[in-house]
Amino acid sequence: MCEALPMEIGVLGGTGPQGRGIAARLASVGHTVVIGSRDLAKAEQVVAELREQWGDRVAGLVPGDNDAATGAPVVVVATVADAAVPTVQAHADQLVGKNVVVIANGLTKEGRAFRPVMPEEGSIAEAVQGVVPGAHVTAGFHLIPAKSLGDLDHDLDTDIPVVGDDDDARTQVLDLVDSIPGLRGLDAGPLWNARGLEAFTATVLTINLRHKGEGSLRLSGIGPRRTPTASAPPTAPTTPTAGT
Amino acid sequence: MCEALPMEIGVLGGTGPQGRGIAARLASVGHTVVIGSRDLAKAEQVVAELREQWGDRVAGLVPGDNDAATGAPVVVVATVADAAVPTVQAHADQLVGKNVVVIANGLTKEGRAFRPVMPEEGSIAEAVQGVVPGAHVTAGFHLIPAKSLGDLDHDLDTDIPVVGDDDDARTQVLDLVDSIPGLRGLDAGPLWNARGLEAFTATVLTINLRHKGEGSLRLSGIGPRRTPTASAPPTAPTTPTAGT
Repeated sequence: MCEALPMEIGVLGGTGPQGRGIAARLASVGHTVVIGSRDLAKAEQVVAELREQWGDRVAGLVPGDNDAATGAPVVVVATVADAAVPTVQAHADQLVGKNVVVIANGLTKEGRAFRPVMPEEGSIAEAVQGVVPGAHVTAGFHLIPAKSLGDLDHDLDTDIPVVGDDDDARTQVLDLVDSIPGLRGLDAGPLWNARGLEAFTATVLTINLRHKGEGSLRLSGIGPRRTPTASAPPTAPTTPTAGT
Repeated sequence: MCEALPMEIGVLGGTGPQGRGIAARLASVGHTVVIGSRDLAKAEQVVAELREQWGDRVAGLVPGDNDAATGAPVVVVATVADAAVPTVQAHADQLVGKNVVVIANGLTKEGRAFRPVMPEEGSIAEAVQGVVPGAHVTAGFHLIPAKSLGDLDHDLDTDIPVVGDDDDARTQVLDLVDSIPGLRGLDAGPLWNARGLEAFTATVLTINLRHKGEGSLRLSGIGPRRTPTASAPPTAPTTPTAGT
């Protein structure tokens, strides 16, 4: 499933908790990851901190400004929710044709509960697609806590549904997920299903507040994904061809 | 957890696939369940069919019209998505003060994917609350297929997040879920989180289309629920009282 490895990945908003977590984890499995920031010095500092903490395990981390991060073929948008759309919009020209992976979700905490905050477009991922129609926008990694991703000694064990309208881009993110031990990518179809992923995050975080422990998503009973282009039956054609 | 058992439950739209499934399963664990229909003769026919199929295991099933179903303290709304709001509205007066459990979710199938269809109010459950403000609206059972619920020989093994603004009503549904072997109720907080549950249903159904097998939700790492009123620490007060 992972023919395209190692990949080159840029992370917009790479110095925040989400960005650091996913960048460190992706680097630890052999990818080259540009940690992007509006402020190059900040990116350099974060990369230095992560190298001090994890040593050679994050050898693939490279600091950059946001322009450098958008130079990669796969660009993860790891800003806070409110900043996802404006950040992508500011780099729209460079993102045309790129696989833009939105991992943000909008929520607020009110008392003993989280509440989903969904944009007019339905989901943040769809709003991002709206400002850069020429990008292949995908979404995933919503339900895995940044601190679990970023703690490389923490064994992961969870399913990651991935959405996106472009089959190749979605498959690329599924492969990226599957390249991380303990994670399993699940093909959840078109970008519109980012609505379920983003909104369900508030549901799971609320469950975490109200139960002991911390939940990891598992869809039991699910087997391997079928290839997106498998509309033809996998068996031999029933009409025999001449000469066999 | 199940002090209130057995419960008396009415099912609006009880003759459809969702209604038959949940009614048979609830009856099989000892609850009294009124299968409601606009047409009493139809309800009688469905109860007769279920008795023929399952015998004494569904002894607790009773046919009724929708007025009879709304006489129970817990009323499950098992109509198709579009009919949930008008059906509840037609019985609004009888539903004041009742625990109204909305299990519907809106979706369409488009090619190899399901798409969530969310009402203006955010979720069907919230729309139902809007037409009967005096009811304690809850929601759950979205992610479990009707045919799994209705096949009493099928062993269930899944988590059921439950939402609702009224603590007692939500706890009652959680107890109802926990009364069914193989199901575990998860406290997912206020009714607003029905958005995540309803939208995520399209996500899971799409994953089912694109992978072999059929997914059952599990949140691994989750322990027992804390009681909704547990704002005080469970340990003894740290200030010693006189006389001890």
